[in-house]
Amino acid sequence: MEDKEEDVRLGANKFPERQPIGTAAQSQDSKDYSDPPDAPLFEPGELSSWSFYRAGIAEFMATFLFLYITLLTVMGVVRSSTKCTTVGIQGIAWAFGGMIFALVYCTAGISGGHINPAVTFGLFLGRKLSLTRALFYMIMQCLGAICGAGVVKGFQKTQYESAGGGANFVNPGYTKGDGLGAEIMGTFVLVYTVFSATDAKRNARDSHVPILAPLPIGFAVFLVHLATIPITGTGINPARSLGAAIVFNKHRGWEDHWIFWVGPFLGAALAALYHQVVIRAIPFKSR
Amino acid sequence: MEDKEEDVRLGANKFPERQPIGTAAQSQDSKDYSDPPDAPLFEPGELSSWSFYRAGIAEFMATFLFLYITLLTVMGVVRSSTKCTTVGIQGIAWAFGGMIFALVYCTAGISGGHINPAVTFGLFLGRKLSLTRALFYMIMQCLGAICGAGVVKGFQKTQYESAGGGANFVNPGYTKGDGLGAEIMGTFVLVYTVFSATDAKRNARDSHVPILAPLPIGFAVFLVHLATIPITGTGINPARSLGAAIVFNKHRGWEDHWIFWVGPFLGAALAALYHQVVIRAIPFKSR
Amino acid sequence: MEDKEEDVRLGANKFPERQPIGTAAQSQDSKDYSDPPDAPLFEPGELSSWSFYRAGIAEFMATFLFLYITLLTVMGVVRSSTKCTTVGIQGIAWAFGGMIFALVYCTAGISGGHINPAVTFGLFLGRKLSLTRALFYMIMQCLGAICGAGVVKGFQKTQYESAGGGANFVNPGYTKGDGLGAEIMGTFVLVYTVFSATDAKRNARDSHVPILAPLPIGFAVFLVHLATIPITGTGINPARSLGAAIVFNKHRGWEDHWIFWVGPFLGAALAALYHQVVIRAIPFKSR
Amino acid sequence: MEDKEEDVRLGANKFPERQPIGTAAQSQDSKDYSDPPDAPLFEPGELSSWSFYRAGIAEFMATFLFLYITLLTVMGVVRSSTKCTTVGIQGIAWAFGGMIFALVYCTAGISGGHINPAVTFGLFLGRKLSLTRALFYMIMQCLGAICGAGVVKGFQKTQYESAGGGANFVNPGYTKGDGLGAEIMGTFVLVYTVFSATDAKRNARDSHVPILAPLPIGFAVFLVHLATIPITGTGINPARSLGAAIVFNKHRGWEDHWIFWVGPFLGAALAALYHQVVIRAIPFKSR
Repeated sequence: MEDKEEDVRLGANKFPERQPIGTAAQSQDSKDYSDPPDAPLFEPGELSSWSFYRAGIAEFMATFLFLYITLLTVMGVVRSSTKCTTVGIQGIAWAFGGMIFALVYCTAGISGGHINPAVTFGLFLGRKLSLTRALFYMIMQCLGAICGAGVVKGFQKTQYESAGGGANFVNPGYTKGDGLGAEIMGTFVLVYTVFSATDAKRNARDSHVPILAPLPIGFAVFLVHLATIPITGTGINPARSLGAAIVFNKHRGWEDHWIFWVGPFLGAALAALYHQVVIRAIPFKSR
Repeated sequence: MEDKEEDVRLGANKFPERQPIGTAAQSQDSKDYSDPPDAPLFEPGELSSWSFYRAGIAEFMATFLFLYITLLTVMGVVRSSTKCTTVGIQGIAWAFGGMIFALVYCTAGISGGHINPAVTFGLFLGRKLSLTRALFYMIMQCLGAICGAGVVKGFQKTQYESAGGGANFVNPGYTKGDGLGAEIMGTFVLVYTVFSATDAKRNARDSHVPILAPLPIGFAVFLVHLATIPITGTGINPARSLGAAIVFNKHRGWEDHWIFWVGPFLGAALAALYHQVVIRAIPFKSR
Repeated sequence: MEDKEEDVRLGANKFPERQPIGTAAQSQDSKDYSDPPDAPLFEPGELSSWSFYRAGIAEFMATFLFLYITLLTVMGVVRSSTKCTTVGIQGIAWAFGGMIFALVYCTAGISGGHINPAVTFGLFLGRKLSLTRALFYMIMQCLGAICGAGVVKGFQKTQYESAGGGANFVNPGYTKGDGLGAEIMGTFVLVYTVFSATDAKRNARDSHVPILAPLPIGFAVFLVHLATIPITGTGINPARSLGAAIVFNKHRGWEDHWIFWVGPFLGAALAALYHQVVIRAIPFKSR
Repeated sequence: MEDKEEDVRLGANKFPERQPIGTAAQSQDSKDYSDPPDAPLFEPGELSSWSFYRAGIAEFMATFLFLYITLLTVMGVVRSSTKCTTVGIQGIAWAFGGMIFALVYCTAGISGGHINPAVTFGLFLGRKLSLTRALFYMIMQCLGAICGAGVVKGFQKTQYESAGGGANFVNPGYTKGDGLGAEIMGTFVLVYTVFSATDAKRNARDSHVPILAPLPIGFAVFLVHLATIPITGTGINPARSLGAAIVFNKHRGWEDHWIFWVGPFLGAALAALYHQVVIRAIPFKSR
């Protein structure tokens, strides 16, 4: 496998000067990184280590804080009649993207910093974590999101119910297909960025990749919000959509809810596929 | 203690590939960092070193500049009748968060870059600095904040008095409990970020942690302002609230003032507790 | 050549303390970096390596996502009658700059992260890549841009046609010369930043250069948009202008279209010239 | 001198754990950095090296691009009757701060990246560059600023003259003393950040200091603009004020012009003084 992979990477190694930005000095004739082995589907040892449960708690806490700050920002904007006296729609996009930046930074070393079942699903497809861990993370993320949305509702119960509370819908003027497409594309952008930032091969070579990683991931979330808030309010995170929907709990909040699970999971799967097939060329390597 | 701590960290060491973002290469079988020892409560030697007083002066200067820039930005927004011709509420949030980013960057190597009695209190609970130093920092921060707010009042005395001068209140439509909760949660987000950025264990392993540290701390302040300016004007920093209240010095500025001390100190204590118990698992280690 | 180059660099080596910001420690008496050799015009070996085609696919995908997110953001702003309920013109500038930041970060290690035929042209003039590769990149970038714009039109066909779909024109009140000048200057700013970030000499010395590189490049795009959206809508990227024009496909979209190819290519050539002549002083070195 | 300096630094070395954020591992018992020697007032050798003239050209080019982008952004905002259809005042602040970030990043390794006579003056007082070089930089910065402002006027001559063209005045409602104070304080914030980022002692210890340096410097400019655009339009850069005033060339543009030279130079001198006396404690070291 080692030799074959060298063949596949030949062009990149032979013409490193073609990759101008941020490419660290690299030796041309030896493999300078090692891919971690694929995570097994079930790893019984995980269940008896404290770090497994600590990672789940960290995911719970991060998703809790994520929903708290972002939904509170949304409420501050929607409850005001004149948007100029609020942080505006752009401020909402900053809240979502900025929280992901800060929280990925804070929890990356504890749990990997997913804070999003779609990200967990994508990384699971890329065999970065076991099925046990993936399911545990998703449950903790959903619980954290429900608690975070609940605290915001506690502050502003009346407004929460009249303003929708940050729940995701397909907005008037768009079809359900538009909404589903926007969620697939948006999650693709996010998970594509996550895979680029966690690639063991690039981490070993480009010095900027691991250092800045949380920043482009946060920006990806910010940018998708800039683009798709007018369409769906931007989900790209099933836990965030679920938390807001459960606490809002009205018909309007549940009707489109499947879009905010199917879309993100499809987008994450496409991003994992793109990364494994095109960028890493794994299917073309002999095993 | 060393061996026992290895037990606690077992999962994290055994499955480092589960922590994909920003995790630096690490040896699996040796402890690759050392926790600094707990700071003593009183350290007489400190009082005779220049660096102790220099650190206090740096905290004074940083808090002075923090209040100067942020309150001047607030005044520029509130004195204008149409918010569209100002930097807006989002600009106020950037002023608070951006100043913390720049000032933490500038003073981290001199005093640790607290610029906030709640941060000092949280780090004191985590035994990162002595009681003497903590009290000295808090006094210098409060003095700096009063001077900074005073300079802004010197520019715009009339408007300062009519517009409230950036003093923190619980806004109409919210209860005092809402305000206290918002301050507790907001300070938790900030001090949780500070603890994540100063963790000796993560610093040794994740190359991005010490390098980017001031950026997520600044973003945490920015994000809390996006979310809670509509509720309390956002304190999460007792020195900032005290400075604005003393210079404003009206009944309205003092009535809710206790909230902006109790809330931040409670939030900081909860964040210190979370970090020591959940993330570092210190109570579960044998001594 | 080595000795002569030492002469040219003499001042910089002799007075390194004059270059205060971010200058890493450097040895004074040896050349501590090596310039990669100039890329040949045609490199037949490239065409048989997977990395060549992978790089082209990465450029396609990045330009596709770039147009998708940015044009969707533009549509969200222009379809709304009151700009205060949108992310605003500033949000559009963030979308363009932020996407370039995230995408350069994600693709720099795969293809060099150009995402812009003008950048490819500038780096080709600087002999950083072969003519074969430059043409292949430009074709893939244009195809990606057309697909990205097409997907946005699929979401909002009616509004796309009435609002112009993000196509570049010279706005009323400006002459074609103004538009051409704005495109030349804007692309100069962008490619000047790209050259500074990819300079092998500086990469070896200033530790911040390769690490932060995608951030100033993204900011350059953001800043040019802040300045020239009122003049031309800001092209500085012929693929972006072509994609929007083809999908819009109205007379108004084609009349000024040459400006968005001639301007960016001229600006990129001037930036390459400035970097090679002034910064690297290549014409003054004996060969 | 070495021993005495150790005495002065005693506290910092003895209690490194008190400096939690971003403090790199450091040996406790040896001086791990070396201060560059003070620059001489006149260094004849400089005048015969290409790097000296290249640095001047780089300062010219950077200040030219700085004025071009920022004044064009200002014009785009002031020529529109409704600010909501522009990037707004916050967008102007981003243009100034963002350009300084990108340009410091691009020119730090060539000329030190001053782009501002006040910064050059402050660093000269700190003996970081010779008087010859300081004067040469200031002249090139002013020439670059005049050219940049001239190009913007070429685009929009009529509007430039009616709207003031980004020239700095003390706005109605403020006294000249307010304007001078705002300029002194604002430049202090900027030069204080520059000194913190170029401190040889901190560079050797805190890994984040040299890497992120251009970012807090850019943010400092952004933040001062947020705070003082309502007072003076924010100068804190005599070359920027001079360029806009010469091209505007009306009585109103010249009346307050002295404020934008005296204020920034005083602010820079105070920041140099603060850094040398308080942070480095140079007067208290035996020589």
